[in-house]
Amino acid sequence: MKNSALSQLARRTGPPPISWLMHLALSRPKLISLAAGFTDNESLPVAEILETLGEILHTNKTGQPALQYGSTQGDATLRAVTSKRLQKLDGIATARRAYSPERMIITNGSQQFLYMATEALCDPGDLVLVEDPTYFVYLGILQSRGAKVRGVRMESDGLDLAHLEKILESLKKCGELRRLKALYLVSYFQNPTGITTSSAKKLAALKLLKQYEPAAGHPIYLLEDAAYRELRFGGEDVKSALAARGFENRVIYAGTYSKPFATGTRVGFGLLPEPVFSAVLRIKGNHDFGTSNLLQQLLARALASGRYEKHLGDLQKRYARKAGIMLNALQKHFPPQIKWQAPAGGLYFWARLPRGIKSGVKSKLFQAALAKNVFYVPGVLCYAEDSTRHKPDNEMRISFGGASEENILEGIKRLGTVLTKYRCTISGQN
Amino acid sequence: MKNSALSQLARRTGPPPISWLMHLALSRPKLISLAAGFTDNESLPVAEILETLGEILHTNKTGQPALQYGSTQGDATLRAVTSKRLQKLDGIATARRAYSPERMIITNGSQQFLYMATEALCDPGDLVLVEDPTYFVYLGILQSRGAKVRGVRMESDGLDLAHLEKILESLKKCGELRRLKALYLVSYFQNPTGITTSSAKKLAALKLLKQYEPAAGHPIYLLEDAAYRELRFGGEDVKSALAARGFENRVIYAGTYSKPFATGTRVGFGLLPEPVFSAVLRIKGNHDFGTSNLLQQLLARALASGRYEKHLGDLQKRYARKAGIMLNALQKHFPPQIKWQAPAGGLYFWARLPRGIKSGVKSKLFQAALAKNVFYVPGVLCYAEDSTRHKPDNEMRISFGGASEENILEGIKRLGTVLTKYRCTISGQN
Repeated sequence: MKNSALSQLARRTGPPPISWLMHLALSRPKLISLAAGFTDNESLPVAEILETLGEILHTNKTGQPALQYGSTQGDATLRAVTSKRLQKLDGIATARRAYSPERMIITNGSQQFLYMATEALCDPGDLVLVEDPTYFVYLGILQSRGAKVRGVRMESDGLDLAHLEKILESLKKCGELRRLKALYLVSYFQNPTGITTSSAKKLAALKLLKQYEPAAGHPIYLLEDAAYRELRFGGEDVKSALAARGFENRVIYAGTYSKPFATGTRVGFGLLPEPVFSAVLRIKGNHDFGTSNLLQQLLARALASGRYEKHLGDLQKRYARKAGIMLNALQKHFPPQIKWQAPAGGLYFWARLPRGIKSGVKSKLFQAALAKNVFYVPGVLCYAEDSTRHKPDNEMRISFGGASEENILEGIKRLGTVLTKYRCTISGQN
Repeated sequence: MKNSALSQLARRTGPPPISWLMHLALSRPKLISLAAGFTDNESLPVAEILETLGEILHTNKTGQPALQYGSTQGDATLRAVTSKRLQKLDGIATARRAYSPERMIITNGSQQFLYMATEALCDPGDLVLVEDPTYFVYLGILQSRGAKVRGVRMESDGLDLAHLEKILESLKKCGELRRLKALYLVSYFQNPTGITTSSAKKLAALKLLKQYEPAAGHPIYLLEDAAYRELRFGGEDVKSALAARGFENRVIYAGTYSKPFATGTRVGFGLLPEPVFSAVLRIKGNHDFGTSNLLQQLLARALASGRYEKHLGDLQKRYARKAGIMLNALQKHFPPQIKWQAPAGGLYFWARLPRGIKSGVKSKLFQAALAKNVFYVPGVLCYAEDSTRHKPDNEMRISFGGASEENILEGIKRLGTVLTKYRCTISGQN
């Protein structure tokens, strides 16, 4: 058979770079990975999880329901606790529709939520705006759906609103606004840049989108991906887009309990207004009719018992310390021409090399780093296919999440050596 | 806004009947559900699972990896054990490619596997053949993809091969064979009829499909859904389609550890040949980049320790006993005009009422049963939209899986009363 029976979706779905990177990290134990957004192995709350599971499984009364199917939407207790928790994070005292447990769906990590929300909104040829750069796995999801993408430039406090407006205006002029379904924002300690979008900018973005809805002929959603929200090193939390009054029916919010607790538990959640809520719930029915009940009850109990909050406090301190170690190492080992912004949370530094120094998988730099048993996520992977600009190829995402403190020091040192050497070669060649 | 921003997929995705049925069962505790394919609550291995989790989580050495991300494809140990186990079930001593762990993907229940395999194969307008009747949630998946469906009639040992050939021939004649991607078989103790397809029939079906491939212009796959395979009451196992020599590259096999162990753990798996394997792996990367590592290691260890097999033996006896109880109750309480075939495994009886007695959700019968606090799955839900025949609407799927022995007796008694009364009314009216 010359031809395959594969669908258009299968043909469009590329190999996700994260799978390849994760595989690389798992298969070469000596390799220092500053690439993957793994959580810190030593931080994982092994004893707390066993304790919590023991509480659930020590009698049949609580054990049996946890080992049975649950509902497609997800455990009611977990949804109620999550809803209250989100309101508290946003500093809102009285119950609001935008946070209602009735609007919430529990998913296999926030990743599954992003996948399903995108299934519910995007036909091939539809358009989604993303930050430039953005979360590369989400770009893979959009590609698999055949959606087109435009990148909105970033400033140090998030979206460049003037650029957003310029894009909306140009879409209106060329009649493409009818295909625009959503603006996707990784709003807290963004993957990959570490930037947090201010609450004022979220509100302004919502207003702008609304302004263009008549020309679009349908709602344009703000899809807020808050995956890193809880990994804040200190200071004030920033309000989510759910808090924006009057926009309850335009905000889709994705959150997760995996990264702040244990990634191996894969429990995330999302909030959506109608009619997207019902659509995603029906899609979830087809995907798997509900996330593992055992994992949901584990999270619900970890939250109710205070174990989750205690662990989170420890985790925030741990990542703050590791970020500090990486910052010191960068200052010590990286050549001065390389620029970065110290993050206030999350798992990543985003480093910009001088123009002309390529950092991609096939670049001499990446290969030289690999030869020294250290690697990072090439920045170019985080840029959408957007014909209106060239993809920058001189950046790197460097994570302090998974690596030990020792490996952060050693990894940055090795990377610094490679960068210094490579800089010389480049200068010598040019 | 008059228009919504929903995608075609969202518009096509119907509310899955199983969600509604499960919700009904969970929200009305007095209702006796002979509907849902829940496993028996009392059978759930609460203590065994806690023991197994304790073994994993009692030290950081094994606990931390279980709480970390794994690979997208799934835990290597679980895949290796599963591969060996399948070969053993099929009575095959030496390693064969069709069973290779390299071809296997671990998923969130077999449901997610079915969803992804269908994503990988079906564009809107493509065609899948199914048994008539078949697993209703799979019909929902096909509908969401915009796939068309044709039902192949069933005999007491599975597919009616003559009908299959007739359909293939008619598709060839009208030029629709190019759209045919797969034949979907729930091959063991089928949901809903309880029928097992013989290994000879699977082989014959594979040969038939192959014969029509030149006209199709691409491979036509046999998608074997073996969800109920392990719930066998006794006797010889039937070989899977994986065992058919020469068809290694045409069989896609879906299995699950949830139903035979604990549904709340949601761990399933699938085997696929290239290029569908790579396509589904890439799709899995977008869905969730891997099933919960903790649940995978729970299953791997339950299998390795013998706890799984011991539990399975107990479970098979339990379901055999419950099936016997239901059989006795049916013989005692159901009017003699109602026909059924006693199943040799699985969770279901399939009862056929006299023509003219409707059993659908809106029928007097279903409503009268609900009023008596008992319900079943209306047979009509299990039939595809197939314009070449009328949907039978006089059947019921009755499950002995989730209900207690007491509730089986009481449920069938109530259903019998309703049926007897309703028969009289019908007779009186006509």
